[in-house]
Amino acid sequence: MSKCTRLSGALVKEVLDSVDSVLFDCDGVIWRGDQAIPGASQVINLLKENGKKVIFVTNNSTKTRKMYADKMSTLGFNAKEEEVFGTAYCCAMYLKTVCGLQGSRVYLVGSNAMAKELEAVGIQQTGVGPDHISGKPLDWANVPLDPEVKAVVVGFDEHFSYMKLNRAMQYLTQPGCLFVGTNRDTRLPLEGGKAVPGTGCLLQCVETAAQRQAQTVGKPSHFMFDCVASQFGVEAGRCLMVGDRLDTDIMLGSVCGLKTLLTLTGVSTVEDAQAHQQSGCAERLGMVPDYYVESIADLLPALQG
Amino acid sequence: MSKCTRLSGALVKEVLDSVDSVLFDCDGVIWRGDQAIPGASQVINLLKENGKKVIFVTNNSTKTRKMYADKMSTLGFNAKEEEVFGTAYCCAMYLKTVCGLQGSRVYLVGSNAMAKELEAVGIQQTGVGPDHISGKPLDWANVPLDPEVKAVVVGFDEHFSYMKLNRAMQYLTQPGCLFVGTNRDTRLPLEGGKAVPGTGCLLQCVETAAQRQAQTVGKPSHFMFDCVASQFGVEAGRCLMVGDRLDTDIMLGSVCGLKTLLTLTGVSTVEDAQAHQQSGCAERLGMVPDYYVESIADLLPALQG
Repeated sequence: MSKCTRLSGALVKEVLDSVDSVLFDCDGVIWRGDQAIPGASQVINLLKENGKKVIFVTNNSTKTRKMYADKMSTLGFNAKEEEVFGTAYCCAMYLKTVCGLQGSRVYLVGSNAMAKELEAVGIQQTGVGPDHISGKPLDWANVPLDPEVKAVVVGFDEHFSYMKLNRAMQYLTQPGCLFVGTNRDTRLPLEGGKAVPGTGCLLQCVETAAQRQAQTVGKPSHFMFDCVASQFGVEAGRCLMVGDRLDTDIMLGSVCGLKTLLTLTGVSTVEDAQAHQQSGCAERLGMVPDYYVESIADLLPALQG
Repeated sequence: MSKCTRLSGALVKEVLDSVDSVLFDCDGVIWRGDQAIPGASQVINLLKENGKKVIFVTNNSTKTRKMYADKMSTLGFNAKEEEVFGTAYCCAMYLKTVCGLQGSRVYLVGSNAMAKELEAVGIQQTGVGPDHISGKPLDWANVPLDPEVKAVVVGFDEHFSYMKLNRAMQYLTQPGCLFVGTNRDTRLPLEGGKAVPGTGCLLQCVETAAQRQAQTVGKPSHFMFDCVASQFGVEAGRCLMVGDRLDTDIMLGSVCGLKTLLTLTGVSTVEDAQAHQQSGCAERLGMVPDYYVESIADLLPALQG
């Protein structure tokens, strides 16, 4: 099958008929910042009316499922809390189900939302909020460590600081300490082509200091799909992943054997996808989507017909 | 010539006779933390009495030349301010002589010592000290930037924070903004096998966010030796570099064509050096020293004889 095909005309219905579930990334796909993509809520409603499972998967770790459901409601989307998989929630699930840390404590470089999702699965955290420096290097190296801490967890943290970096490093040099990150996105894109540093910068900073690699749970790691699949009984071969980023959304689809659709309302372009396709590099081929659309609103005619 | 030879007996005098200048790294070589290496000050005095130029080259960016001279004096070393090349000073020299930024301003992620060395060569800075977060992502992306800033400079900064990372990234996405780092050491080793995160972690964090590579001035970049050579008329072929780190000190020597001596009172081991030698990898061969000693005190008998 030829890849990176524009999805239009009769092909839209054909592709939608071939799937039972549709996974949507959020930012750059159904909204941009605080503005819904025109037509997106109709697309989601019609997919549901047509009997499709619709699920949202986002690498953003700054919101709980509840906060996502509230934002969706505000922007006019019909979505339940259980249908949203953010990395704050998925990270908590990973620590509970894969690492078996229920009842334990972690050192968290991350947001209040992450602390809440951890608490909801019975994991305590230390570390959230500001942590300013004082003293001298030898004091930093001898900073008191909580003996109950079993893992260092890194997500987006606007209070990231040298002291947090140091504390994470000191925990991670202890034998047996686990190391989990939410995602590796290096930038958080905003309205008007602006961006701010993403979790990937912070995670890489901690990895460099600790001389260790973290396990990440966000896209393109398959754990995020495993999490969705186990709760919704999604069959990979009959699932469509819709996203605006080739390196996270489309790669996740490739890793997990999903059909993939790139939408051009966000970060990546068709030219980016074609460059991957022409590279002849096996790893980059995983970033070539099956299909692309200008906007997910392009799915509307087939759903309304 | 066979490399990684133990320097002892008659060979010590032979090697010392073949050089006019000796460059010493500081931490792990002439001192460890706040303790002088036994015999180090005598070695330095005797080298000078024997007519050798003795110069100190350190990647640490948290001290001015004056602060180094004071520390040396406290620990019993005979050294003038002009004989010490730290990365705070060398970075200022690089910005002045290579970048032509005298009379300009830079955004500094770094220490007060760096600010002082910049000021001493006529470069203003903004950024030193704490910079805590407030507001939301769109505020961060639209943070006011100083239009006079011509470069982002990254050194060791105990006040490193997400807001500083963000500010550096916003400057670096402007066309023409230069990007200079002091050094890439990922850890700052301390007494008792302890360590804290080094400048390399912070620099890599900013590089990841900015999607750009910085030019670094510290070891193993040849600028540090150029700086010494231009001020002291040092001839590379008749200069010995003494250090405890293969990746910075010994690599600098290889890059600049100096003779190299590893001392085992610091970070690297003979086994590390031998592993590089046996790797057959061209880049790693640059990290194999010509000679090694247990401590620079091993040079004493030849100097006293």
